Amino acid sequence: MSTATIKVKGMTCQACVNSVTKSLQGVEGVQKADVDLAKHQATVTYDEGKTSPSDLKKAVEDAGFEAE
Amino acid sequence: MSTATIKVKGMTCQACVNSVTKSLQGVEGVQKADVDLAKHQATVTYDEGKTSPSDLKKAVEDAGFEAE
Repeated sequence: MSTATIKVKGMTCQACVNSVTKSLQGVEGVQKADVDLAKHQATVTYDEGKTSPSDLKKAVEDAGFEAE
Repeated sequence: MSTATIKVKGMTCQACVNSVTKSLQGVEGVQKADVDLAKHQATVTYDEGKTSPSDLKKAVEDAGFEAE
């Protein structure tokens, strides 16, 4: 397992946090996703054989938020 | 083209609206998605040969919101 920390821009409320969390959890290989509204970041534990930080960023962007 | 009106629960800010809009626009066959925060609803114009209201609801739920 690896851990990625992704900066997430555009979240302004708890429902945004839920949205990003659910999108990340929907990526195959993601074991755990912790999304922090105040820090504007997501900490994701994932199986590096199944997904990658670029996939995780894409999932955040597909949910309508900016990732970097 | 057909139009579906979907009730969306859980949106509390404009970023939520953007998230639902982007998720709906990502469904193949969706031509237009108007999401209204105050009315808690999404009005979606779609190609009935490519997608269906149940697919649209799934997209909303995958974005972390409730659809009915």
